Parts: sequence; C-alpha cells; structure tokens
Amino acid sequence: MKIVIIGSGNVATHLAIALKKAGLPVAQVWSYHYVNAVQLANQVGAQAIAKLDEVDHQAALCLIAVKDDAVAGIAEQLAGFKGLVAHTCGAVPMSVFAGKFANYGVFYPLQTFSKSKALNFDDIPLCLEANSEASMQLLKQVAIKLSNRVLEVDSDKRKILHLAAVFACNFTNHLYALGEQLLEANGLEFDILRPLINETASKVQHALPLAVQTGPAIRSDEQTLKAHQELLLQHPHLLEIYRTLSESIKKTKS
Amino acid sequence: MKIVIIGSGNVATHLAIALKKAGLPVAQVWSYHYVNAVQLANQVGAQAIAKLDEVDHQAALCLIAVKDDAVAGIAEQLAGFKGLVAHTCGAVPMSVFAGKFANYGVFYPLQTFSKSKALNFDDIPLCLEANSEASMQLLKQVAIKLSNRVLEVDSDKRKILHLAAVFACNFTNHLYALGEQLLEANGLEFDILRPLINETASKVQHALPLAVQTGPAIRSDEQTLKAHQELLLQHPHLLEIYRTLSESIKKTKS
Repeated sequence: MKIVIIGSGNVATHLAIALKKAGLPVAQVWSYHYVNAVQLANQVGAQAIAKLDEVDHQAALCLIAVKDDAVAGIAEQLAGFKGLVAHTCGAVPMSVFAGKFANYGVFYPLQTFSKSKALNFDDIPLCLEANSEASMQLLKQVAIKLSNRVLEVDSDKRKILHLAAVFACNFTNHLYALGEQLLEANGLEFDILRPLINETASKVQHALPLAVQTGPAIRSDEQTLKAHQELLLQHPHLLEIYRTLSESIKKTKS
Repeated sequence: MKIVIIGSGNVATHLAIALKKAGLPVAQVWSYHYVNAVQLANQVGAQAIAKLDEVDHQAALCLIAVKDDAVAGIAEQLAGFKGLVAHTCGAVPMSVFAGKFANYGVFYPLQTFSKSKALNFDDIPLCLEANSEASMQLLKQVAIKLSNRVLEVDSDKRKILHLAAVFACNFTNHLYALGEQLLEANGLEFDILRPLINETASKVQHALPLAVQTGPAIRSDEQTLKAHQELLLQHPHLLEIYRTLSESIKKTKS
C-alpha cells in the first residue's frame, strides 16, 4: 500500500516513523518547506516532493498532518487524488473534504506529540471517521497495524475529545509550567516536582480523577488556601488561576 | 530505633508501610479514631494506642502525619516527649514545635498519596528541616533508608514547594476531572484520555514544561480557540477556566 504524508511536523513525523515500523513505509513526504520534507523523507526512506502536484496518484492513502487551518487549502490543491484522503486533526470536521474527493476520512491520534520524544503507538487511541464503509475499512486496516485502540468517532464527538484533550494535556502542561515559574522565582528546581507529576498522572490510570482529588481545596482547608493566596500576592496572574481552580475544585465536593 | 506514627491517613499509612519495608518498623500508631489506628497498626505490626499520653517516651522519633491544622493541637498534647518530633506537612512551619520540645523538625514527602495505590518511596523527594544538627542527622538517617532524594528545605521554601505542588498535582488532577466531565456529558469514556495524560506527564520528565507546550493557545490558533469556546457555551464554568488558562498560555509565548 502506497502512503503519502503531507506535513513534517510533530504528528507527521511520529506517524511516518510508526507506519514504517509497522511495515507500511511512507512513499512520499511533502512539506511547506522542502528542506523539512527532505529531512523527514530521509528519516523514513521516502521520497521528498516539493510540490503537491507531484503526489503519486497511484497512492492508496494520503494523510494530511498539518495545522488545522491549513487542511482546507491543501485539500483544494490535492483535488483529483483518486485514493483515500484523511486528515489527522481533532478540531477539523470531515466535511472539509466533501465534494473534493470520492474517498475521504479522518485519522485522529489522541495524543500529544513532540519530535524530540519517541512514542509507542500501541495504546494511542486512533479515532477514525470515513465517508463510506470502504474508506473506513482502509483506514482501519492501517490503524490496527499501529495501535490496539482503534475507534470510530464522528466529527462532533471528535471535537469534544479534542477539547477534553486541551484540558487534560495542554492546560495540564501549563500548570506544570506555572509550578516551574514559582519554583524558579524562589531559587528552587523544577526537577523536584517530577515524581509528583508522574504519580498524579499514574493515579488516574486506574481510578477516576474525581475519586482521587487531593489538596487544600477539596479538604476545604481554608487556612492553607489563605496562606497560599498570601504567598501569591506578588504573582497576581498565578493568584487569579489559584482562585479560579480552587473554587472549581470546591464545586465538585457536593 | 523506636518510631511512633501519629495519624492513620494517606501519608501516615504510606510512611508506616515504607518504614517497615526499610527495616524501621513502627512501634506505635495513634489516630483520632482508635479503629483506624488499630487497622494501620495491624497492617505494619505496630501497637495501636487510644490516647496520646500512651506514646512511648523511649521512642526516638514521633512522626506527626495529620491534617495541617491539627499539628499544633497534637504537639500541645505530646509536650514532654523526649525524642525527636517531626511533622510531614508542606504548609506548616517548623516553628509550630518551638518551645514545646527539645528536638524537632519536619519530614515532608513531596508526593500525592492515596491509600488505594501502592507507592515506591525511592524517588520521592523527602524535604527535611530540623532545629539542630543532631535532629537533622536523625531525620536523615531515617530518610536515606526510604528515598534517594533527601533534601534540606527550610520552612519558607517548603511553603513554596507545597504551593507549586498544588499547581502541578491538585489543579492538574482537577483538569483531568473537567475533561472527564466534558466527555461524560457527551457520552464518551474518560479512559480514552488516559494515554494522553500519561504522555503529558512523561514529556516533562526530561524537558521543561515551557519547552513542550502544545495546543491551540500556544499556536495562537484563533479559529480553534473560538470553536472550543462555542462548544463550551453550555458549560459556563468550563468556559471561564478555558479562557483563563488559554490567556495564561498565550502570555508565556513572548
């Protein structure tokens, strides 16, 4: 099966590597910047292409792994592609492809990707959507070679998944960053928080987060809540977040 | 070395188990509710005591692992104890013991504890403070048997650590819970977020969070930010948190 990857960012890179590992080598890579396409293509033994009209029309699958707002424009330029076209974005509806292709879908991996960190695809939920049963079968055929968690998810539910992921991943990482900021301002190292961060994530692997909430807000420990807010007086920005999230935790107590 | 544990909650339980494993079995356990003292004492082969005046005055170390605002009252009742008294709280200054004991300190494990989940103490930062070199030596002697990460941290810095831990652990877990709430409201399972949560924590084990921030806010992807806020119109509470944290992430871009 010939696969083309459009994009060379975090998702494109991890996907191309995982596909290669799974015995589904990528045939071509395109990127806005040709130099990036070359780099990724070299990494996975594919051909780098400089223009979208060089996409091999014999390819069975073209995976568009680019920024959300770039998908529509690329689809425009790929019009006429005979194989299956799928994007990898959480927040872009499948309908972005309607009228442009005969076979299309979505191949959304619910995970956070950084180029610098290797990833095991085995348990990454791959959320699939397709415009026909045949398209879905092809996406599944690829997906089950990469992961044990393949799901059908429509565009509306995928939007919700993506939004929930922003809370559980992007916002969470930002809270780590705020912790880092606070420690740094006081001559302490971020490293001391790492075991705690690991354990916090580990605890919800076999429990629901509501059941394992700890800290002063859930205990209504007003003395500590007050002391913390006093410590944050020089950091009005952190103080606002402290208050907002502590109030939100208290609301879950009922 | 005879060790007494005051408390039978999450921290007391994990500490007692870890001490036993490390070859430092606990001699006595006291708790507000005798039945809880009996349960923990049975678990670690200690004696449960019903009253604080039954604490063995031959004990070398009395670890007070109770809620922050209960430490002072217990210290009052333990007055006269000849060994070393230490509490395990992040937000309580060591001075709570001043004038009450000759030897005192703090033994603060920077970790989140749930009774239901086993914990390896090896890499839990144990933050120690003591009123004298001799007291510090005794605390260290115990701490290095439990963990490879033993640090001296004074009361002011410990307060900051505790506050940073609220951001990195308590608030983070709450964001998992908000993700759960959103999924549940839309007929989706929390389980689908678990690999993402794991990877988010895993990424900062070898990087700083600022360097691995992902998501629409850091990309200034206004289209997705707007779409997410529209999805949250029926959840004004989540909308407020979404806006606050997205704005906060944008501020880190400079």
